[in-house]
Amino acid sequence: MAFNKRIKIKALLQGEVTGTTQTLMGWVRTKRSNKNVTFIALNDGSCIQNYQIVADPQTISEELLKQVSTGACILVTGSVVESQGSGQATELHAESLQVLGQADPEKFPLQPKKHSLEFLREIAHLRMRTNTFGAVFRVRHALAYAVHKYFNDKGFFYIHTPIITASDAEGAGETFKVTTLDLKNPPLTEEGHINYKEDFFERETNLTVSGQLEGELAALALSEIYTFGPTFRAENSNTTRHLAEFWMIEPEMAFYDAEDNADLAEDFLKYVIAYALEHCADDLAFLDQRAAEEEKTKKAEQRSELGLLDRLRMVVEHRFERLTYTEAIEILKQSKPNKKKKFQYLVEDWGVDLQSEHERYLVEKHFQKPVILTDYPKEIKAFYMRQNEDGKTVAAMDILFPGIGEIVGGSQREERLDKLTQRMEEMHIPTEEMWWYLDTRRFGSTPHAGFGLGFERLVLFVTGMSNIRDVIAFPRTPGNAEF
Amino acid sequence: MAFNKRIKIKALLQGEVTGTTQTLMGWVRTKRSNKNVTFIALNDGSCIQNYQIVADPQTISEELLKQVSTGACILVTGSVVESQGSGQATELHAESLQVLGQADPEKFPLQPKKHSLEFLREIAHLRMRTNTFGAVFRVRHALAYAVHKYFNDKGFFYIHTPIITASDAEGAGETFKVTTLDLKNPPLTEEGHINYKEDFFERETNLTVSGQLEGELAALALSEIYTFGPTFRAENSNTTRHLAEFWMIEPEMAFYDAEDNADLAEDFLKYVIAYALEHCADDLAFLDQRAAEEEKTKKAEQRSELGLLDRLRMVVEHRFERLTYTEAIEILKQSKPNKKKKFQYLVEDWGVDLQSEHERYLVEKHFQKPVILTDYPKEIKAFYMRQNEDGKTVAAMDILFPGIGEIVGGSQREERLDKLTQRMEEMHIPTEEMWWYLDTRRFGSTPHAGFGLGFERLVLFVTGMSNIRDVIAFPRTPGNAEF
Repeated sequence: MAFNKRIKIKALLQGEVTGTTQTLMGWVRTKRSNKNVTFIALNDGSCIQNYQIVADPQTISEELLKQVSTGACILVTGSVVESQGSGQATELHAESLQVLGQADPEKFPLQPKKHSLEFLREIAHLRMRTNTFGAVFRVRHALAYAVHKYFNDKGFFYIHTPIITASDAEGAGETFKVTTLDLKNPPLTEEGHINYKEDFFERETNLTVSGQLEGELAALALSEIYTFGPTFRAENSNTTRHLAEFWMIEPEMAFYDAEDNADLAEDFLKYVIAYALEHCADDLAFLDQRAAEEEKTKKAEQRSELGLLDRLRMVVEHRFERLTYTEAIEILKQSKPNKKKKFQYLVEDWGVDLQSEHERYLVEKHFQKPVILTDYPKEIKAFYMRQNEDGKTVAAMDILFPGIGEIVGGSQREERLDKLTQRMEEMHIPTEEMWWYLDTRRFGSTPHAGFGLGFERLVLFVTGMSNIRDVIAFPRTPGNAEF
Repeated sequence: MAFNKRIKIKALLQGEVTGTTQTLMGWVRTKRSNKNVTFIALNDGSCIQNYQIVADPQTISEELLKQVSTGACILVTGSVVESQGSGQATELHAESLQVLGQADPEKFPLQPKKHSLEFLREIAHLRMRTNTFGAVFRVRHALAYAVHKYFNDKGFFYIHTPIITASDAEGAGETFKVTTLDLKNPPLTEEGHINYKEDFFERETNLTVSGQLEGELAALALSEIYTFGPTFRAENSNTTRHLAEFWMIEPEMAFYDAEDNADLAEDFLKYVIAYALEHCADDLAFLDQRAAEEEKTKKAEQRSELGLLDRLRMVVEHRFERLTYTEAIEILKQSKPNKKKKFQYLVEDWGVDLQSEHERYLVEKHFQKPVILTDYPKEIKAFYMRQNEDGKTVAAMDILFPGIGEIVGGSQREERLDKLTQRMEEMHIPTEEMWWYLDTRRFGSTPHAGFGLGFERLVLFVTGMSNIRDVIAFPRTPGNAEF
């Protein structure tokens, strides 16, 4: 017999159901009683709001109500009536109540008080039952769905690029090895090296750092594609911005040049943020307030001038500022913090890589809106970026956001076989191993471009959380693979 | 200056654009010329159809047309006119043409002739430029999008469960190890074991075989969630049905029992297949014909009675047959192939696991429609499945499809702490390591259920392809991690 005969709280709040009998199921957030009546705040995860249950001890036994403590899961049936109290339009007057699962008040860690984010990270298996993390993961869902909807509506095809790969062509950093060899007694070759011929894939393999190169292969057949999958970095960085395992979105488009690429990236970012504003209004209102309270604990000079919702609307409503790296260097050289030596890294020469402090100065102080920086020196960018006519720069683009810094990195790709091969040789990238990548420049090559977006950085920006470990369900960082 | 000023062929075929001037970009499939005119069949990946370009040597130089060979990428501008020929309603009369990238006819491997699927697998970086693989990957995209749309519309939240994990709790088979240790000189403990304290995560880690357990944690906070991510099996199986890396969809729902679970799974499968029928009509018509031709090469007794489109409609239009394992065993015992000893594994005793031949008999011969088998013996199912009152069976469910066999496996989950702990101990599953999983039964437990769907099996079923390596862009199998 089907058990799932309930209405979700989200539907209950939206519907015209006053006067009807309904069944709710969910987890008790709080309970308070007086002599005459017990009020239960119930949450079922469908939305940030709790729903008020009113239980009369004449109808629901005291013995049963004793088991109704914070964290318990209950099933309650009753009539939906207009609420006498403030704070809710309607409430449910319980006619029957069943405790599905108790939560011993002595042991249940999520008692109704303020918990630190650090503590909640240690109980990541339960933290989604809090207001903050419920909101974060509902917003994360909405953003993920918006990504798929945006690209699908535009005729892009979703490609699953491989997770296990034999190439570290991007050279983007340290990779995780993937193996089935016996680590204690690995097979060796006659020369004493590990004999990868005996490994599962008969070669050395690692976890992917990017699906871009395979994405390009697909774009040069299907025109416009995107990836959305996990990527990995084995960097030993214990910061609030790094994860060893994170999700990336990488669109690749045939027939796009650098300008088309920037247009798409800007339109895409605005779409997904506007989608969250529209579909997660209640969760974002809660997170806006949470972020405002967190701001108060900071020193005055570290506080954001804009609130969370203000920042989101600012991105959606303004055209992103576009300028070249060369122009940015001039601005930075002339800037107050550079002249007064307030930057940790002073900007003196063309060619240096920009630090986070420089990016934030441009976005937060100078332009006060998102910035698209283009045409970086080729020495600080990857081999596959298209070389500009000046011989010095490549058609790269980074999009910088307030508070976050780089949120998107992309480029027009080098489609000319001779230029690409030459650059690979200069950068010691093995052209033989990459025969398949070069084949796309041999056969029917065309101008094309693409970009990558770290999904967790987007979720950070939209939720206003400050630690990236708080926007992915079960974060993977050095020393941490719990759950 | 923006380069992407083209119309996609899909839009061109749908729009009312006769009489307008348009720019197309794409790859040449074929070219044929007579003295007066050249016909180019152009494909841009947006749909299965090629678009006919008509080039008059008076307008487009012969020198240029020489470079227009199969596989070349071109940009062509001209007027859209009603076609004189059969096979297309309109065609483009070229006013200007630019070769974006040539494809040397001596070297380009995809000349217009029939290629074997084996050969195309070796050039997986180019195979998406063929009709078959273009269709397969457009259908794959549509199915992936339908998955997200189905769950989003129902209020489920998409959860990214971890890829790197320290638990192999499901015990689902061999796993890939993930490590940053030096394989040649791994650090050892005093006892001579590998010292995983020095590994990246300070413990032994592997690639996930399933996101279910983490999915349950999320469902017991947000009510209804789903995962859609890569999973891994290091089984040394070189078959047409196994991949080392594949994508799984795993919904988990609080407040669902076994019947709710089966209802959802049936509704979900019908939705995504109906979505593909509606949105991929042209690609599926092509694949239907392709499958029909492949059938002809088979022996009469191995041929399917239904064509591809017939099979898809059959699934959408029929209520799936539901019966228990025990009932299925009775049917199989009495079946002709069992009595005549035609089964490789004869069905004699209650308790045996069903083989593929038995599943196919039930679906293809006995019921001739999809079958949901429930209530399997607990000995052949995982520890987390809810124990039935009979003490012998669990609330498991497998959905069996024609041609594919098991496409979905799921169960109501054991929500009772004592029963779950007891079963884990019987099956030697370490309860201490799984403290977080058991916590959800300690605090606010509730009836819940879920299932898993191997995405590639769904794509196989819907595209009618026969080898699973042909429905994922870059397959990972023993000895194969190319691209």
